[in-house]
Amino acid sequence: VTPSRGPRAERGEIAARILSAARTSFATNGFVGSTLRSIAHDADVDPTLVSYYFGNKRGLLEAALDPPPGWLTAVATACAAPLRQRGRALTTTMARAWEDPDTAEFLRSTILTAVHEPVAMDRLRSTFTVYLLGAVATNLDDDERFFRAGLVASQFVGLALTRYIWQVGNLADVPIAKVIDAVAPTVQRYLSGKII
Amino acid sequence: VTPSRGPRAERGEIAARILSAARTSFATNGFVGSTLRSIAHDADVDPTLVSYYFGNKRGLLEAALDPPPGWLTAVATACAAPLRQRGRALTTTMARAWEDPDTAEFLRSTILTAVHEPVAMDRLRSTFTVYLLGAVATNLDDDERFFRAGLVASQFVGLALTRYIWQVGNLADVPIAKVIDAVAPTVQRYLSGKII
Repeated sequence: VTPSRGPRAERGEIAARILSAARTSFATNGFVGSTLRSIAHDADVDPTLVSYYFGNKRGLLEAALDPPPGWLTAVATACAAPLRQRGRALTTTMARAWEDPDTAEFLRSTILTAVHEPVAMDRLRSTFTVYLLGAVATNLDDDERFFRAGLVASQFVGLALTRYIWQVGNLADVPIAKVIDAVAPTVQRYLSGKII
Repeated sequence: VTPSRGPRAERGEIAARILSAARTSFATNGFVGSTLRSIAHDADVDPTLVSYYFGNKRGLLEAALDPPPGWLTAVATACAAPLRQRGRALTTTMARAWEDPDTAEFLRSTILTAVHEPVAMDRLRSTFTVYLLGAVATNLDDDERFFRAGLVASQFVGLALTRYIWQVGNLADVPIAKVIDAVAPTVQRYLSGKII
């Protein structure tokens, strides 16, 4: 197999398959417990292809932590909603993200990998800073903006774990519209309401 | 060393040291990645003592997932507060729990272990059911009570991860009273307020 000669579409498909296997492996076995060889096996490709596309295991981790571009666009759009509607817009985007298989796989992998892997934790923190901080009302001092963005992050991370990963109580079975209705006012208050 | 001949206090102290080492090991290395031998080493005790006190690794995990009794009492007391003040009482108890080193170690270990270990996940789910469900207003149908308890869990788990484990933004540096002021109204609304 000479990957550089393959048609562009096929190369993209192989890289996507490797990324998907890597995300599952990092989430399940951690960074230390994952090997390029086992990921290649799970992706059903030759191990040399993994090195060819991603260099080493660290490069593969970095790529696995890149958010799907469509999701970033959706978050940016929600953050640009009028401040009064932004809580609902952001909550809807974050909840709906789990309905797209690629984004769900990315989110699940990032959260589970970040539990043990500092590199993933740092990426999660910086994604948080860049995106959620931009959603907070701007006429506030930095300390308060960081605090508010952190509160928003706490609700989204908690919802992700309890609904989509742990399936606590009946949270996983409640229709998404009901979850959004319940959580959006929380996020709105954290963004722009009274928190003291 | 013949543990059964040791004074009661000393035996308790050895068991506590083993439990503490086990909680750290399960959280960091997972259940599969932990061994009785390595835990004994970390606790600075003979491996036979670990088997003596806890049987096998599964027994040690079960013991590591037992909440400190003092914390359970505190949660039960908060759940018995008048409904209107219960959101603040519960938020205060959950936030203050991290100020006690033993309880913080238990919470951190349970959350991090539950990410990969189904036994820990099940225990976390049942602790949630027994305790948080009891905090929700009782004049509601079961589906709504489970949903509300799940929402409360989502905020507490999210706060635990973002403030105490990941230290997202400035959340870890914000005084605890400010965090409680910000989060208590969320928990109160999930317990007894309008969520639709």
